[in-house]
Amino acid sequence: MKRIVILGSTGSIGTSTLDIVSKFRDEFQVIGLTAGTNDVKLEEQVRTFKPQAVALSDEAAADRLRARCKDLRVKVFGGQEGVAQVAGLSNGELVVSAIVGGAGLMPTLAAIRAGKCVALANKEPMVMAGRLMQEEARKHGVSILPVDSEHSAIFQSLQGHRKEDVRRLILTASGGPLWEMAREEMRDVKPERALQHPNWKMGAKITIDSATLMNKGLEVVEARWLFDLPASQIDVLVHRESIIHSLVEYTDGSVIAQLGLPDMRTPISYAMKYPARMVLDLPSLDLAAIGKLTFQSPDHDRFPCLGLGYEALRIGGTMPATLNAANEVAVAAYLQEQIAFHDIAEVIRSTMDAHNPREVESIDDALDTDRWAREKAGVLIRSMAPSTLR
Amino acid sequence: MKRIVILGSTGSIGTSTLDIVSKFRDEFQVIGLTAGTNDVKLEEQVRTFKPQAVALSDEAAADRLRARCKDLRVKVFGGQEGVAQVAGLSNGELVVSAIVGGAGLMPTLAAIRAGKCVALANKEPMVMAGRLMQEEARKHGVSILPVDSEHSAIFQSLQGHRKEDVRRLILTASGGPLWEMAREEMRDVKPERALQHPNWKMGAKITIDSATLMNKGLEVVEARWLFDLPASQIDVLVHRESIIHSLVEYTDGSVIAQLGLPDMRTPISYAMKYPARMVLDLPSLDLAAIGKLTFQSPDHDRFPCLGLGYEALRIGGTMPATLNAANEVAVAAYLQEQIAFHDIAEVIRSTMDAHNPREVESIDDALDTDRWAREKAGVLIRSMAPSTLR
Repeated sequence: MKRIVILGSTGSIGTSTLDIVSKFRDEFQVIGLTAGTNDVKLEEQVRTFKPQAVALSDEAAADRLRARCKDLRVKVFGGQEGVAQVAGLSNGELVVSAIVGGAGLMPTLAAIRAGKCVALANKEPMVMAGRLMQEEARKHGVSILPVDSEHSAIFQSLQGHRKEDVRRLILTASGGPLWEMAREEMRDVKPERALQHPNWKMGAKITIDSATLMNKGLEVVEARWLFDLPASQIDVLVHRESIIHSLVEYTDGSVIAQLGLPDMRTPISYAMKYPARMVLDLPSLDLAAIGKLTFQSPDHDRFPCLGLGYEALRIGGTMPATLNAANEVAVAAYLQEQIAFHDIAEVIRSTMDAHNPREVESIDDALDTDRWAREKAGVLIRSMAPSTLR
Repeated sequence: MKRIVILGSTGSIGTSTLDIVSKFRDEFQVIGLTAGTNDVKLEEQVRTFKPQAVALSDEAAADRLRARCKDLRVKVFGGQEGVAQVAGLSNGELVVSAIVGGAGLMPTLAAIRAGKCVALANKEPMVMAGRLMQEEARKHGVSILPVDSEHSAIFQSLQGHRKEDVRRLILTASGGPLWEMAREEMRDVKPERALQHPNWKMGAKITIDSATLMNKGLEVVEARWLFDLPASQIDVLVHRESIIHSLVEYTDGSVIAQLGLPDMRTPISYAMKYPARMVLDLPSLDLAAIGKLTFQSPDHDRFPCLGLGYEALRIGGTMPATLNAANEVAVAAYLQEQIAFHDIAEVIRSTMDAHNPREVESIDDALDTDRWAREKAGVLIRSMAPSTLR
């Protein structure tokens, strides 16, 4: 019986994780859940999975949940502190980190510092402070297991092979909802169109990241820290069908890949039970029925965000945290139709241009940069919004 | 410095193995070489690689080689006995078994019995006596490492994952030189056409096996014994481009695959240095340049030999040895234009129909069956040849 904590349990990855747990109740026990503001959904989860403690980062929502769960023995915490407390529950064995965005950084770090193995679905801790996260993990003797489908694919393709024999990692990209769209049409494509992902059902923020290819830019940074390889050994390949989830090329010309139908339960369950696998009730991959898999080079011209990811990684230090924060603010502004689609990259680039990068010596360096970049991006958005929106 | 012996050194796999050795002279030392009749080519190899002993299964050829190599200190053996002697050289560490056809059985067994790790490129030992070969390997504490590109792909895709989590093996098949050909045209396609393989440069016998898909039928039997899984867990997928060399599906829906340009040096070198990899001077797999990979179900109607392979495996015992022997005789007759292309499957099926299968309790059971089936197939060919050739 593995005791698990899920950070971000009401989101897409969180609910998929609970879906798996519900089918393997004799293998996993949910002891902690955290969410942001959704006290209604969290209450449901509490009644189903009976965790010992939960937290909502929103204090008012935590108050509401406390009232709703009066009849239960669950401890309800509120605020960032409360989330960190649940992340580090002393009897936890595995923490599934599935909070969207930079808000996941501190709770993930709290889990690592409490000596918990982390199944990481949240890119931002690695993007904002990858080197530090790995140092902390080493210090506390814990593993960080990837949950993102691409990084899980690479992790699976590295099993049983020697790290020193790796020539390069190849992250596949679906190309997202706008891959076929002409550049002019893309300029001010509306959120409802950009949210239509061809293969994956994900949250709004990640789907827009997929439309800009920033998702892949962030994944390149994440891969750099998860697998300890430089940007020059990390490539991106556009593969529309999202069947090959990523690949690893070795020095003898051999390439190992992980494939599967696009269903997050496979990578989530792999991280939950690693190195063993669960028997999931998923259909077999029928390649003959699929017929063909296609591959293209990324288009840096229409999708400048991917290049920005590589650039931030090459500059290093606090630059990836700047990239990430500016992107979060820009995507939120786009979803609220405050800026046009092509402005997302503009906001990020201008924020990066204005940033004076330094080393990430402590988590505060990452958090300070995050705050600075959010503010900077906000100012940029307010200055540009009227002129570009029509 | 790993001391290696190559059985079948003048063939396609043998020369590729020596090509690798020539680039890694400080890692491998060739101490033994064997071939069938080609004393001229073997002499060249002896002068280049300076093995301590060599053998030719043809006694007359061995005599010629002895005369040619008078100035050298190499020991030259002749006959099957001689080949077995080189296979079991006491200081050998790895035996690359690359003899074509059933002739490879006894020397491979000799290597195993002498306690040598075997890199197996020769399907027939596993097809004729798979259970026995694995029993002998266990008894002598040696591993049998696959060299066939498909089996190497499966072997690589199993590394680091648990055997009990495997749902099925998926062997890919190029479809061979005649995949697009209409059934009527296939009936009496000439050898020079059937020898034109789209992706792989191989020997004549294996190329015809690829044209009939018997190659895949034999590989299914080989996979059964190499990986200890029943026929029901071994599937075949037609993949014309020969880029994905095979795949393993796990119980969580995850599929691990090995890909690469069609170059036998990759699987050969993997078996030679397993579990490490060599740095081979091969171009990177550029999937964006390749553009697409296609997949189809096998066509059992136009290619009955694949089904015969599954049938022989299901019946078990001496039936796979019968299948293999009848196929060798039929392919040889076809290459000499004694029978038509579609007669190959007919000869095999009729030989199997006439066979009374029994368990393979000893290697003699396999060898007796081999002899019986060759004779039976020969009789069938002589009886059918005049009526079907035009």
